[in-house]
Amino acid sequence: MADTAAKRETDSVGTDELSQRVKRAKADNENGDGGVGKDPESEHILSEFKTSTVLSDSAREKTIFVHGKLGDQEAVVILEKTPIREDDLAELFTGSRLKLEMRNDIYSTYRLLAPPQLNEIKTTVVCPATEKHIKKYQRQESSLVEETGEDYKSITLPYIQKQSFSVQWVHNILEKKAEAERIVYEDPDPEVGFLLLPDFKWDQKQVDDLYLIAIVHQRDIRSLRDLTSEHLPLLQNIFQKGKEAVLQRYSLAASKLRVYLHYQPSYYHLHVHFTKLGYEAPGCGVERAHLLADVIQNLQSDPQYYKTRTLYFPLRADDGLLGKFKEAGRL
Amino acid sequence: MADTAAKRETDSVGTDELSQRVKRAKADNENGDGGVGKDPESEHILSEFKTSTVLSDSAREKTIFVHGKLGDQEAVVILEKTPIREDDLAELFTGSRLKLEMRNDIYSTYRLLAPPQLNEIKTTVVCPATEKHIKKYQRQESSLVEETGEDYKSITLPYIQKQSFSVQWVHNILEKKAEAERIVYEDPDPEVGFLLLPDFKWDQKQVDDLYLIAIVHQRDIRSLRDLTSEHLPLLQNIFQKGKEAVLQRYSLAASKLRVYLHYQPSYYHLHVHFTKLGYEAPGCGVERAHLLADVIQNLQSDPQYYKTRTLYFPLRADDGLLGKFKEAGRL
Repeated sequence: MADTAAKRETDSVGTDELSQRVKRAKADNENGDGGVGKDPESEHILSEFKTSTVLSDSAREKTIFVHGKLGDQEAVVILEKTPIREDDLAELFTGSRLKLEMRNDIYSTYRLLAPPQLNEIKTTVVCPATEKHIKKYQRQESSLVEETGEDYKSITLPYIQKQSFSVQWVHNILEKKAEAERIVYEDPDPEVGFLLLPDFKWDQKQVDDLYLIAIVHQRDIRSLRDLTSEHLPLLQNIFQKGKEAVLQRYSLAASKLRVYLHYQPSYYHLHVHFTKLGYEAPGCGVERAHLLADVIQNLQSDPQYYKTRTLYFPLRADDGLLGKFKEAGRL
Repeated sequence: MADTAAKRETDSVGTDELSQRVKRAKADNENGDGGVGKDPESEHILSEFKTSTVLSDSAREKTIFVHGKLGDQEAVVILEKTPIREDDLAELFTGSRLKLEMRNDIYSTYRLLAPPQLNEIKTTVVCPATEKHIKKYQRQESSLVEETGEDYKSITLPYIQKQSFSVQWVHNILEKKAEAERIVYEDPDPEVGFLLLPDFKWDQKQVDDLYLIAIVHQRDIRSLRDLTSEHLPLLQNIFQKGKEAVLQRYSLAASKLRVYLHYQPSYYHLHVHFTKLGYEAPGCGVERAHLLADVIQNLQSDPQYYKTRTLYFPLRADDGLLGKFKEAGRL
């Protein structure tokens, strides 16, 4: 399952992963010696930081990942603004200065200058950082690829076959050799059956970010591209029973679900994503997700829809398949 | 335009939409009188703000929407931390204090106390705020609605017509009575022509979150539902010339763009969204967005595709249209 996990991880290069690792080690918190220390100097350690390059940033999430040097050592510094806490509001409102930006009718906008202690920036330093760290935090540009039915046959399918990505971990799940205790629902039918289980991204602590995966028992369906009207009973069965199982287990109505397939998928054994509507799950964007309801409808009106259509999907700059499309002059 | 703007705001409970309305009217900026003013007092206007309740917040986006009172008037205050800018890094690193939180091996975390002017909070005040404003900013659950071609005719279309949402502000743009200086590109042809201009969500300071809108000159196309193969020349023209204009103006290749329509749209005058691939723009999820390339392809193979298909989209609990679907027993 390593391949998949790695693939999954690359989807969401977050500060969360890092903070996970950092928290995991928090027990060792007080034992440090040498290096960046608890000594007073550490309060100004970043003043000697020399920025080389911004690895990635997010205007939406207010984060930035910076590569540079601390003294003669490579380092990565990660800054993330902290969420605005309800408890701080009163003090924020009384203790801050406002600069008027514009005003119109009932609307006015300001720049608010807050006391630093009410407006901290979470800072993580990785030092010395290896090449691997730097690559990990680097934003990978994606390009939208246009794949005709012909491109699939001549470029994508041979690539998938040559890579022979292992889906042994999927077979282990289907055979109950692994993760059996995580199964939420199973329809054991070999033709239309499937297993439903939580995605690893979901900690199952709240339904706000519910994320389940339905994995089909049939083993020869790689992706959307293999689907024809023959598979309608399978797809309809997943749609229907999957929604029922979510209602049963999590009391979440079908109208609160986003049910979709990925193209390209992360692994080439047909699976369907069930996520909570309103939760912006990684990969739920229109450039990669296909609503199961649309897939069913499209196959009903054209049995060969996904064999013949041009499909669009993003590929990261370091994805081998992107190289194949470039070689073929398709980008 | 109030209704339409309000509709936009309800879509993604963003501060962005609000700033949209605020910015749109920026011309009137200096004419105000009374209320929250440009006088020095405005610098401390929030010190008298009494919080009643937090309407919504986002730990991910570092935003909070607060309802309360300014004197004896109802008000909504919206705070959003600002993105971390590369240009500020050097000053941030030298001018800030760090408080060590934990340290383990090569990892250490700190709380960074930054100079207020390098760490502003964008603040928007709506005062006096009506019940409608308060409702608008309140977090709302959405439900996925299934709309058949028949449902569109019997439920959605009558609702749209009855509401008669004003698109006067769109006409103002098309007639160059407003926002003329913001136009990035125009094809003036009355049949296949359109205007391309930045969405208000985009501050145009970096292409990372590029967001442009193409608004068609034709005035009788409400949405995806009105499109038939007759409109292919229009759609292809927008796709082609829009991508060229983005390349020309922002040096961003077509393969880095996500080009799509919304259904339901925020306003019923046909428009197309151009956003940067990789930027998780609000509304780019598969449940609401339709790739223009797919729309073109679908109309090519079935001229009536969008008249006859069942379409799926989320509606907020307070959306009047959701009430209509419930009344009709369709939810």
